[in-house]
Amino acid sequence: MHRPVGIPRADDFAIVTTDLPALKDGQVLVRNEYLSVDPAMRGWVNEADNYSSPVALGSVMRASGAGTVIESRSTAYQVGERVVGRFGWQEHALVEERLIDRRVADDVPLSWSLGVLGPTGITAWFGVHDVLRRAAGDTVVVSTAAGSVGSAAGQIARAAGCRTVGITGGPQKTRLCLDEFGYDAAVDYKAASFAEDLAAACPAGVDGYFDNTAGAVTDTVLQHLNVRASVVLCGTASLSPAGPPPTGPRVERLLLTRRARMEGILVADYRDRFAEALDGLTAMVRAGNLRFRQDVLRGLDAAPASIAALYDGTNLGKLLIEL
Amino acid sequence: MHRPVGIPRADDFAIVTTDLPALKDGQVLVRNEYLSVDPAMRGWVNEADNYSSPVALGSVMRASGAGTVIESRSTAYQVGERVVGRFGWQEHALVEERLIDRRVADDVPLSWSLGVLGPTGITAWFGVHDVLRRAAGDTVVVSTAAGSVGSAAGQIARAAGCRTVGITGGPQKTRLCLDEFGYDAAVDYKAASFAEDLAAACPAGVDGYFDNTAGAVTDTVLQHLNVRASVVLCGTASLSPAGPPPTGPRVERLLLTRRARMEGILVADYRDRFAEALDGLTAMVRAGNLRFRQDVLRGLDAAPASIAALYDGTNLGKLLIEL
Repeated sequence: MHRPVGIPRADDFAIVTTDLPALKDGQVLVRNEYLSVDPAMRGWVNEADNYSSPVALGSVMRASGAGTVIESRSTAYQVGERVVGRFGWQEHALVEERLIDRRVADDVPLSWSLGVLGPTGITAWFGVHDVLRRAAGDTVVVSTAAGSVGSAAGQIARAAGCRTVGITGGPQKTRLCLDEFGYDAAVDYKAASFAEDLAAACPAGVDGYFDNTAGAVTDTVLQHLNVRASVVLCGTASLSPAGPPPTGPRVERLLLTRRARMEGILVADYRDRFAEALDGLTAMVRAGNLRFRQDVLRGLDAAPASIAALYDGTNLGKLLIEL
Repeated sequence: MHRPVGIPRADDFAIVTTDLPALKDGQVLVRNEYLSVDPAMRGWVNEADNYSSPVALGSVMRASGAGTVIESRSTAYQVGERVVGRFGWQEHALVEERLIDRRVADDVPLSWSLGVLGPTGITAWFGVHDVLRRAAGDTVVVSTAAGSVGSAAGQIARAAGCRTVGITGGPQKTRLCLDEFGYDAAVDYKAASFAEDLAAACPAGVDGYFDNTAGAVTDTVLQHLNVRASVVLCGTASLSPAGPPPTGPRVERLLLTRRARMEGILVADYRDRFAEALDGLTAMVRAGNLRFRQDVLRGLDAAPASIAALYDGTNLGKLLIEL
């Protein structure tokens, strides 16, 4: 057995069949119906602590899942209830009840609970409303703007009256930003004219930056920060997950002279306020001003290659595995 | 005439005598009694915009001053009142009334109004209370801990119940931090064992960091940031004032995984709340738990070399020029 080097690939994992032990008190058996493929999973398989301790070699790959309770020795969850939690890459998850994050409302497609009405949407919601905290008329830039978190962030900022500028890779995603996700402007970071295009798209500077990338894209955006701008750090897709942090232009003087704020977000910190975000997100989805895409892979066999798929830039929407 | 390259030196300035024109409506003539020497002055003489537009070649060097109104054609200020404002390096300042920041209370030594009961103390006050926002028991680290802003920040954080760790250069200033400014621990960044010393001084990690330096000292501190830590960027003494920003370790992943916040402060942004800070600072000074030092140079002839003196690390307190 080995740990992945860099982005985990299919041959870093093995699919095995084991017998399920009997449930103990407080445990629940969930039949997984959807697994979520998330950028953070890249970090979970690294040796070093990231947000959480690394996944142990030879254990089930950590993943968020959504499914139905099919057996319960918990007083909190009943057979037949639909739940979301840390259920891992497996068809059946025998878990302690504390690994269940929440129930899923009956009138919501289960798959949405892993995306726009789950961690993806909740991250975007609090990133915009709790960290960026921009006023109507402000310019908000979003990186990985066509991605599941980015596209939600852009639409949430737009619903708050902000002018939104999406940064994404290639003409197809740029069109998607404009036509489907309602950005006021979209800029292709792969274009040679990226820096000029971004400047042209932000004539009044940048008041808020929802960042999923770090790296060179972020360096370019930060040049346009206005006084009292805010930056939410939500992901670092362009940085290597392991090893010492890469170097880049120091941000101290820039943040100081603009009196700007840069702040990291982790959705788990908002656990006590999930309901508040889900109410807001559900209302937006129903009103038709929070559009989203899902890319659904089929079967557990698709799991091992799924993390790498997330990083090659080809998926167009929240990546899920349907079991 | 030329602009300074790097830190401005004595021969970058000339002392000249000119006649004062007659006052126009709305103007005030102030006899300067004290001039403030501030780190930010390094930036004001650079070509590039920093906080404010560069000082024009051949004009009076911008500086905060404190003095007495000796002639007035303003309805807002009367002859005999003591005032603080942007009075510049000159014995008499003929200024528009909008360049006056505030009156100085009668029972306060005028020199204090440029330091602990002026921008220095106010910066520390809001940096701690408004940006760091730490709870009792938290560990707060301060860089340039024996300096005028740093020493005030350390004492303000301590008065809020925080455990304070000062970073300064050399054994004399380290002692000053412990004996005079009440830090719980003091670390010498010039010592070969700096990284180990800092780690030992922060066994529970760092919850708040009041930064006046940026650069290598800050890189070392950031390694110890706890989850939900806050960093206030107040100065960048260790960075070159001109040219492209130097490179350093990228902070994005670190701020993200710790869900930490990094934010710049400029005292002028708090103009509407100066009275709140001055009330708090005055109470601390009177109670004897806000100690401070002043280094007073004599005469306008001392001004040209004073900025460089600030950066050579030898002054021990708020640097002032008494006229």
